[in-house]
Amino acid sequence: MESVKVFAPATVANVSCGFDVLGFCLDKVGDEIIVRKSTQPGVRITKIEGQKLPLATKENVAGVAAEALLEKHPCDFGFEIEIYKGIKAGSGIGSSAASSAGAVFGINALLGEPFTRNQLIEFAMKGEELASGTAHADNVSPALLGGFTLVRCGQKPDVISLPSPQELYATIIHPKIELRTADARSVLKRTISLEKGIQQWGNLAALVSALFMDDYDLMSRSLVDVVIEPERSALIPHFKEMKEAAIAAGALGSGISGSGPSIFNLSKGQATAEKVRQALIDSFSPVGIEFDTFVSPINKKGVQLITP
Amino acid sequence: MESVKVFAPATVANVSCGFDVLGFCLDKVGDEIIVRKSTQPGVRITKIEGQKLPLATKENVAGVAAEALLEKHPCDFGFEIEIYKGIKAGSGIGSSAASSAGAVFGINALLGEPFTRNQLIEFAMKGEELASGTAHADNVSPALLGGFTLVRCGQKPDVISLPSPQELYATIIHPKIELRTADARSVLKRTISLEKGIQQWGNLAALVSALFMDDYDLMSRSLVDVVIEPERSALIPHFKEMKEAAIAAGALGSGISGSGPSIFNLSKGQATAEKVRQALIDSFSPVGIEFDTFVSPINKKGVQLITP
Repeated sequence: MESVKVFAPATVANVSCGFDVLGFCLDKVGDEIIVRKSTQPGVRITKIEGQKLPLATKENVAGVAAEALLEKHPCDFGFEIEIYKGIKAGSGIGSSAASSAGAVFGINALLGEPFTRNQLIEFAMKGEELASGTAHADNVSPALLGGFTLVRCGQKPDVISLPSPQELYATIIHPKIELRTADARSVLKRTISLEKGIQQWGNLAALVSALFMDDYDLMSRSLVDVVIEPERSALIPHFKEMKEAAIAAGALGSGISGSGPSIFNLSKGQATAEKVRQALIDSFSPVGIEFDTFVSPINKKGVQLITP
Repeated sequence: MESVKVFAPATVANVSCGFDVLGFCLDKVGDEIIVRKSTQPGVRITKIEGQKLPLATKENVAGVAAEALLEKHPCDFGFEIEIYKGIKAGSGIGSSAASSAGAVFGINALLGEPFTRNQLIEFAMKGEELASGTAHADNVSPALLGGFTLVRCGQKPDVISLPSPQELYATIIHPKIELRTADARSVLKRTISLEKGIQQWGNLAALVSALFMDDYDLMSRSLVDVVIEPERSALIPHFKEMKEAAIAAGALGSGISGSGPSIFNLSKGQATAEKVRQALIDSFSPVGIEFDTFVSPINKKGVQLITP
């Protein structure tokens, strides 16, 4: 194999009460990445379409992630990467994670899979470090493993694949405002009350249980974030109204995707997810800010080769 | 049926990272409670053996819990309750919960089960309110439902039964010191750092996942409490040394049971749990404080009728 084409999916991190630990993988929306062997050693980004992003290897998340892999697996040949961005940078659905995950997945495929998907997380995290300053695994884990993933904090991330209920669909709305990660971070308080902490971990434990038990009602009751959302949602215009509209249309729950500005909504069944999408459109249209919406099942496979 | 005899088991609440939400049910150690129909309406505690506790209905946790049930299910006859305490009050393994749960379970049986086990939780919580000032469900839930239980906070407790891995055993050590709940509470800080909160909920989500997946290694990695244990363990002499001894002997993890002074240790397999017990005895004996130890499987049934 001399080249591969990869679909690298969008992802939702900071799933409600699962701030900083829980994420899931989307379908349909993502980057396409072509990775090609070249005789010249090293990594070169030869083309980026769909977004203005740096081509210089060390300034590009895919380049940095690819180099991290090759550091652990030296080669006497190199790789050229073409990136066709399907995800807008800064939208909050894992744009940098998709490119990082796609690049390392493609190279790993061309190398005959010396690494497992789980092992690729560490390399893709280097891309996240470039993008946001911290090498977090919140988005690259679901991008690489698919489904819902839980990341236990630790020196090395301890990533656990959780079950994805069959009928679960996500509706994403992306209000096209610029929301800097630094601003999204600065609104967070460094301390929380023990009481809210207890509520948060009770809800997260219940949400995780609901995923294992296919219990949509419990999912709905536990998709509650009492710590982060009350602070961050102020940065997203019309957040409260959109959330109310989504719930009224049948969504199990809603929350900020990543650090925003996108909002994720979870529903049981595609038909409800589409109703939620229409409700969000109706709610947000009068605001006068451009926006995108889409409905997606939970992508259980994660990043995949696109066979010609 | 004119009378029933009930085994009301001991329980462990505040399971490590699951502070205030996660508990499990023990076996072998518990109270025995005899409930007898009487022509005289109302509830009378006619006998208590094994502990000095008040006989007056409104001052006794079992009496208060029983009255809460009868308020929802009025009768023209009454009940006499005999309590044979197998659990020492204040030991941290759910003494008040056992008596409360046992009383309402026994009355419910004599009434032909008008309430489910889940519905009995609310009544038993009234006993907890008398005992500790707050109507918490941490111990009465596993006492009534068996196994591991998760209590989502809310106006009404939302109790979720979690799976109990087959080979999981608990080793309990009860150092016979007096540790007042008020003191155990007063050492807790009212706020925690967001960073520790994230670690705690990541660990709890992982622990819950481990219970669903029968993953003992993950259980071991996630039985970590970065919020409560660092504060409270100072109230339990020799805590750190006992924990180290238990882990060295093969325990998956250890923590404070309830608000102490008992310590629970979880192990894979009865043989390891017995080794852990011996290691705890060897570690604590030189301290010169009296103590009890026992090994128990996770009790999957909860409170039960004892058939003659």
